[in-house]
Amino acid sequence: MIRFSICGAASYACGELLRLMVHHPETQVAHLADSFAAGRKIQDEHPALVGFYDQEILPLNDETLDMIVKESDVVFTAVDAGTVCGIAEKVLAAGKKFIDFGADIRFRDAKTWEKWYHLDHPNYEMTKEAVYCIPEIQRDLAKGKSLISNPGCYPTATTLGLYPVVKEGLVVENTIIVDAKSGYTGAGRRPAPNKLLAEASNSFCAYSLGGTHRHTPEIEQNIAYIQGKDLMKPETWQFINFQPHLTPQIRGIEVTIYATLNKDLTNDELYEMYQGYYKDEPFVRVFPASKPVQTKWTAGTNLCCMTPTYDARTKRLLVSSVIDNIGKGAAGQAIQNMNIIFDLPETTGLMIPPMYP
Amino acid sequence: MIRFSICGAASYACGELLRLMVHHPETQVAHLADSFAAGRKIQDEHPALVGFYDQEILPLNDETLDMIVKESDVVFTAVDAGTVCGIAEKVLAAGKKFIDFGADIRFRDAKTWEKWYHLDHPNYEMTKEAVYCIPEIQRDLAKGKSLISNPGCYPTATTLGLYPVVKEGLVVENTIIVDAKSGYTGAGRRPAPNKLLAEASNSFCAYSLGGTHRHTPEIEQNIAYIQGKDLMKPETWQFINFQPHLTPQIRGIEVTIYATLNKDLTNDELYEMYQGYYKDEPFVRVFPASKPVQTKWTAGTNLCCMTPTYDARTKRLLVSSVIDNIGKGAAGQAIQNMNIIFDLPETTGLMIPPMYP
Amino acid sequence: MIRFSICGAASYACGELLRLMVHHPETQVAHLADSFAAGRKIQDEHPALVGFYDQEILPLNDETLDMIVKESDVVFTAVDAGTVCGIAEKVLAAGKKFIDFGADIRFRDAKTWEKWYHLDHPNYEMTKEAVYCIPEIQRDLAKGKSLISNPGCYPTATTLGLYPVVKEGLVVENTIIVDAKSGYTGAGRRPAPNKLLAEASNSFCAYSLGGTHRHTPEIEQNIAYIQGKDLMKPETWQFINFQPHLTPQIRGIEVTIYATLNKDLTNDELYEMYQGYYKDEPFVRVFPASKPVQTKWTAGTNLCCMTPTYDARTKRLLVSSVIDNIGKGAAGQAIQNMNIIFDLPETTGLMIPPMYP
Amino acid sequence: MIRFSICGAASYACGELLRLMVHHPETQVAHLADSFAAGRKIQDEHPALVGFYDQEILPLNDETLDMIVKESDVVFTAVDAGTVCGIAEKVLAAGKKFIDFGADIRFRDAKTWEKWYHLDHPNYEMTKEAVYCIPEIQRDLAKGKSLISNPGCYPTATTLGLYPVVKEGLVVENTIIVDAKSGYTGAGRRPAPNKLLAEASNSFCAYSLGGTHRHTPEIEQNIAYIQGKDLMKPETWQFINFQPHLTPQIRGIEVTIYATLNKDLTNDELYEMYQGYYKDEPFVRVFPASKPVQTKWTAGTNLCCMTPTYDARTKRLLVSSVIDNIGKGAAGQAIQNMNIIFDLPETTGLMIPPMYP
Repeated sequence: MIRFSICGAASYACGELLRLMVHHPETQVAHLADSFAAGRKIQDEHPALVGFYDQEILPLNDETLDMIVKESDVVFTAVDAGTVCGIAEKVLAAGKKFIDFGADIRFRDAKTWEKWYHLDHPNYEMTKEAVYCIPEIQRDLAKGKSLISNPGCYPTATTLGLYPVVKEGLVVENTIIVDAKSGYTGAGRRPAPNKLLAEASNSFCAYSLGGTHRHTPEIEQNIAYIQGKDLMKPETWQFINFQPHLTPQIRGIEVTIYATLNKDLTNDELYEMYQGYYKDEPFVRVFPASKPVQTKWTAGTNLCCMTPTYDARTKRLLVSSVIDNIGKGAAGQAIQNMNIIFDLPETTGLMIPPMYP
Repeated sequence: MIRFSICGAASYACGELLRLMVHHPETQVAHLADSFAAGRKIQDEHPALVGFYDQEILPLNDETLDMIVKESDVVFTAVDAGTVCGIAEKVLAAGKKFIDFGADIRFRDAKTWEKWYHLDHPNYEMTKEAVYCIPEIQRDLAKGKSLISNPGCYPTATTLGLYPVVKEGLVVENTIIVDAKSGYTGAGRRPAPNKLLAEASNSFCAYSLGGTHRHTPEIEQNIAYIQGKDLMKPETWQFINFQPHLTPQIRGIEVTIYATLNKDLTNDELYEMYQGYYKDEPFVRVFPASKPVQTKWTAGTNLCCMTPTYDARTKRLLVSSVIDNIGKGAAGQAIQNMNIIFDLPETTGLMIPPMYP
Repeated sequence: MIRFSICGAASYACGELLRLMVHHPETQVAHLADSFAAGRKIQDEHPALVGFYDQEILPLNDETLDMIVKESDVVFTAVDAGTVCGIAEKVLAAGKKFIDFGADIRFRDAKTWEKWYHLDHPNYEMTKEAVYCIPEIQRDLAKGKSLISNPGCYPTATTLGLYPVVKEGLVVENTIIVDAKSGYTGAGRRPAPNKLLAEASNSFCAYSLGGTHRHTPEIEQNIAYIQGKDLMKPETWQFINFQPHLTPQIRGIEVTIYATLNKDLTNDELYEMYQGYYKDEPFVRVFPASKPVQTKWTAGTNLCCMTPTYDARTKRLLVSSVIDNIGKGAAGQAIQNMNIIFDLPETTGLMIPPMYP
Repeated sequence: MIRFSICGAASYACGELLRLMVHHPETQVAHLADSFAAGRKIQDEHPALVGFYDQEILPLNDETLDMIVKESDVVFTAVDAGTVCGIAEKVLAAGKKFIDFGADIRFRDAKTWEKWYHLDHPNYEMTKEAVYCIPEIQRDLAKGKSLISNPGCYPTATTLGLYPVVKEGLVVENTIIVDAKSGYTGAGRRPAPNKLLAEASNSFCAYSLGGTHRHTPEIEQNIAYIQGKDLMKPETWQFINFQPHLTPQIRGIEVTIYATLNKDLTNDELYEMYQGYYKDEPFVRVFPASKPVQTKWTAGTNLCCMTPTYDARTKRLLVSSVIDNIGKGAAGQAIQNMNIIFDLPETTGLMIPPMYP
């Protein structure tokens, strides 16, 4: 049995991690910590967990961290930007595995992180060592490793939707535009008036307008990776537009990806190409142009569903790609990555159908 | 008093038209007809109208149409594609005004309509005579006219969002992409399982994927109009991508418009340019980059709110533009057009605040 | 023109008051104050008001209050429990009108308030003088008066639903049960995790279980009033059960009222009795048993819609009564009361249709 | 492995049955039939099932029924009222197990069914033999049996909420009132305008007003069963009021139960009594008065959560009880009953946490 602990257990993503772990036959919880909810029971934070967990949430300090590291095989973190490396150092020093939900170690070049997060990075070396892993693209990098950066929600849906055409060299440079929509779990649990049902319901809006969202460089790094570019030279990457929105629903991300292709394709050819790339992937499902995907087809799961299409008039690719932002976009993919680094079948604990309707 | 009648009164758009007319001091209802709801009371179709209207819905046939034409000053139509011209001919022959909600007379060149609607057009001459009017752009065309084509919902939000930069010649040809999201009133009232609350709620999806939505050429015609191109030569128009989605809410359209500009602008410069274009428009509100607009800011009104931004990295314009799809996107704009052709102040009956929250 | 000011202008109820006042031809805003939002523009708190109001929100202190009182004809308050009387004293001393949204002056006997609100009441005399007014029942009490207590949302929907049968003496004592459901604007604007769209959406729950909600004695006082009992002797009132719930929607209250009747009635007889009571009331609409009312039929208005029915098997009355909690349940009724005390037609500014769908 | 088939597979309840069966280690699907969806793939009806099932939906006729009966160990039915017995006869004649989701065999006395369903019952004997089973109350009746009537959704939530106090003899006769709220999956999949997201969202309403809902006698029979009354003598049962409502959400039922008790209890005493009844039940969770239950705590599961309280002022019990209407209210309980009749642990395949948020 793999003993796992979580730092940041009160977040939506970690509530989902605990919920999904109920289905995992090879794990058991060790400790749960969270600076903002210490002293409460975990099921008081996440009502779904009543009857399945009964841990008291620990504060996050040197003492509890030592205990966590000692009594765990793997530690997951969902903590404030800039505070990840301190925890990771202790976990790695003890020879344990570490999987982070945040952005601290997502960039090989820490300067990219510094530029978009407006903070000094505490550990340049660690970012070089960390393995960022969307398994469908990078699973080989992660095997046997201990320091894993779990990808962001938007970058996961986007990168999977772009992978086949970028890999095939079909995308004209600097033409990629990503129009993304997320449910409100993506906006986090910290209360604010604009996130209240009374104000957010029955309305739709953009946010981080004009190219300012922090997931932009993560997607650009992923495209550079697929293209085989040097991840330490962000100046060689192409630019994209990534524009997020909030849709009045709980879970789910839809990204519509636009890109000019350098070759004409039919919808059928595109569908076959995508099928070819993903036919052996248990968590990716490709649909033909007549079947636009819906976010609810992925609710509560590690699935990514997508419909790739091509508009011959404008020579543009249009892909609609959907995930559950706290499933494949966070907790599900973290478990998939955990399965990889512990040499379990990737699907262990994750082959559950979505909840529809 | 202007006596108005409606053909297609059971639609959401015409229910909204009747609701808004309650606020209009210069109109009174004459007749209401609808092929699918004949014999019922109008307030049984639209519960909002209880206490405000008590008409029985007429069937739509030669006899009722003669009566409608005779006893009305203006007739609004929201009827099946291909059936508009027959009604319009009678209305015009009697010297009355006509405003259509559909697409039959939206294109100066009827062949464009035939291509996208897969029908033969019954009256090529009428399309040439019809006046398509987004008042903020084309009000002068409509003054004194009798045959008005009321613009589509998506094209209204999009065209208003593009107008200043297209008019200024700032947009690089063939770079416009429109990612649109609509509430479910946009999907109409005819029941289908995918529109049920039980299935549609809490989910998001694209539809008409890959450049197939019929509002595409309407937007292209509008851009051509702003550029001063010949509307009878669609082969000279630039192509755009228009990709619609359904968001789990009742009303509201948000379009995010992407376009490469041929000149660098700051967000502030862009904001000032848009403000310059719309500062005297009572129904258009421009917000700075820090204030993304929300669909609910327009609920139940004839307002269009927008936030224009510029991403200097990618040299792209990003505009988020919102309307109520059955307000400014249909009934509100129809009343605005009615006010124009009857020489009333454009704001008559329309200066009502949105319902928020 | 009536100059009005608001203390507590950032609340949902007062945002709605300002929105509805746009339709009122005889008023103009004087000052807006709010302890929690001072210094901001009113339209930043209530996006619906952009273009209609441009006031800066004042802090609420002696100085601003003096100015407000001096420059207003009527002052509305939506402030913390226990702080109303201090404001009211100043308003009345200046010979101005006062309308309170809260509970401070709702009970003739201040001890009832003290018992349910767990505070000492600052002004026993004022509660005796205050006029609590649901116009359909108590309008004569309010005419010419200056100190008005605007009824609570739940009590309004409930009392109107009970009025005919209580007035007719048909209800068996102590058999009234009120099962109430409210949208989330009823839960206020102060953020909390359980009110976030991410948690509240797609779920339903009771709150204040077991007879603890503070609107209970207000309903009991109203029943006592209808029965002609002494409002200073709460020990003579009958007890009811009032059980509120939260429904995942923005606006709207539905109450289902159960009561044993001392006489058998058919649904038709009941319908006619209710029609008889309300046929001249512009804001109350009675529907037959075959037409259950919906909260959305009242959205954004001062309407109350109800369907009274009778179950002969159990000898119980079942009435479903709906209002907009911030319309007839707060701001709409406050304007109706203002119209009464200023001797305007009650419907002035309020005859607007609901927004449906 | 238990081979199961479903007649009526396109319903929401049977989609959920198939989804939950994925978690069941001892079953495999045999055949799926549905008169309204024959010829389609099951995953086209239920998108959640893509990748988990690939059956073609059969028509429901003599030939397919023979095949279904032959190749199944248990047959589930969700078919039109009045058509169940014909199927059941064939299943039982072949020595197989039968579990029905409908009401045809819910009443021991077929005349009660005839009275509320306005049809002639085809098989009086079968209703006497059928076992109606809410396992927490009646599991012993079902062991070893073949003809199971799966309880209705509302009656399940209500009966579990009433069981302890009725069993203890604490409820005063004829004082029970049940105010019930259901999500829109409870309204079924057949499209109608009032069930569209565009109309149903953001609104709340009652339906079947005045004591006319068909689940009323089912609840009355259950109370009679708990009281040990003769189920063939409905004239000896007490009457209740059962009043359903629709809440704008997908899944979930909340019932608030009111009943006069013949003895004073504290909230704590009540909580302990309920805990005593349910402490060994894996699917029932009792919460104290300070913790009102939410429907979402049961989403996608076989759980029933409840908060019992007592109002000493009115001497009334108030219980809030929640389930997932297509989980414990249909598919979950059907699997629980299947486990019982096949002598498997009741929790097999059903111990999954709800999806929250």
